[in-house]
Amino acid sequence: MKEVKALIYDVFGTMVDWRTGVARESKSILGPLGYSLDWIAFADAWRGEYQPAMEEVRSGRIPFSKLDFIHRVMLERIRPRFGLEKVEEPVLQELNLAWHRLDAWPDVPYAQMRLRKRFMLAPCSNGNIALMADLARRNDFRWDAILGAEIARDYKPKPIVYLAAAEAFNLKPEQTMMVAAHSNDLQAARAVGLKTAFVAQPNEFGLNTGETKPNGEVDLAVPSFTALAEALGC
Amino acid sequence: MKEVKALIYDVFGTMVDWRTGVARESKSILGPLGYSLDWIAFADAWRGEYQPAMEEVRSGRIPFSKLDFIHRVMLERIRPRFGLEKVEEPVLQELNLAWHRLDAWPDVPYAQMRLRKRFMLAPCSNGNIALMADLARRNDFRWDAILGAEIARDYKPKPIVYLAAAEAFNLKPEQTMMVAAHSNDLQAARAVGLKTAFVAQPNEFGLNTGETKPNGEVDLAVPSFTALAEALGC
Repeated sequence: MKEVKALIYDVFGTMVDWRTGVARESKSILGPLGYSLDWIAFADAWRGEYQPAMEEVRSGRIPFSKLDFIHRVMLERIRPRFGLEKVEEPVLQELNLAWHRLDAWPDVPYAQMRLRKRFMLAPCSNGNIALMADLARRNDFRWDAILGAEIARDYKPKPIVYLAAAEAFNLKPEQTMMVAAHSNDLQAARAVGLKTAFVAQPNEFGLNTGETKPNGEVDLAVPSFTALAEALGC
Repeated sequence: MKEVKALIYDVFGTMVDWRTGVARESKSILGPLGYSLDWIAFADAWRGEYQPAMEEVRSGRIPFSKLDFIHRVMLERIRPRFGLEKVEEPVLQELNLAWHRLDAWPDVPYAQMRLRKRFMLAPCSNGNIALMADLARRNDFRWDAILGAEIARDYKPKPIVYLAAAEAFNLKPEQTMMVAAHSNDLQAARAVGLKTAFVAQPNEFGLNTGETKPNGEVDLAVPSFTALAEALGC
């Protein structure tokens, strides 16, 4: 563990609460236009299109596109289901920015401040650079660089995304630790030689819905970001 | 000018003093080994290999490589000239990191703190991500992202480097302002639609050697980073 020089992070679900954030932002944009949805169900449905949309890129069926673009495609797919066919283009563009306005889980910002004293920090998310930069501004994440899908031109859990992040910091995979609340993300990073830290976020999809323990081997498993900082001696 | 949302920066010469920094670091590494060079001449000679090395990549004669790698190639070219043939590999690797340990010109850090209140900020340098991240740590530059050559996989002044930086922020070229002390950099950015700000750094190659005025049209020309913050209302 002593050789780890950089921590790279999953962001959606691990660091920020996309579910209540997207619900809140959608309500604040569509509510005043007279729409009254089950906003949480809307956020879940939007996110529900995520894996199939990612798979289109990962399989090579469509060329790499930024997550902002993919989010818009996902939105188009669910609009009819929520009676949003008549929402106009400028509103849809604004709505798509809901993903740029998500709040961190409460213990993240201070833990990050501690962790940055000892490690280089970067997101290794499927989110694009502009999206990550806006989340960082909102939550005062102090990243050393924005790494992840847009740098690698492919989506996690493809190996190149993790390897490109380590390489951008001039580090070997074993000098880089992937931090995530999702076991599949960690196992993919581990398979190409990165160190891994599981941080539980049990409320990602609602109270007590998330993984509380890692599924598969990891180098570190902790219940919170504060515990991550402690465990890494920061 | 009101539509500008992001400032992107040249770094070597514009924000950091590479010349005295490389001289100082080289002396601190090679001096204790018994070498006594004209350290400023050594820094100048190393940097002197920059444009020819860049041109190898820009012309497509060699594939894109990070500036850290190119710096090492440049170092190999000048070693015989300075009697450094017998310096050993670990020392050469350390010496190559001199470029990661450069100091900002004195008014840069505080001006950046002011400018970030109103603009997204990123380097648009030929330096690679790890190099830019280390300079940012040392000088407390708070970048929103590290953009530039490594993102574009090509070197300035090729148009793609400026355009890829604007695109990474989801911005149009005219919403992005290139800041540099070098007219050729600014003219290349301007040619593809970016706004441009010339900041004089008259001492880049020694006292009163740098450009004091832009050669060609720019949107803004100022004598210092403090003046840039003032001019942009920050």
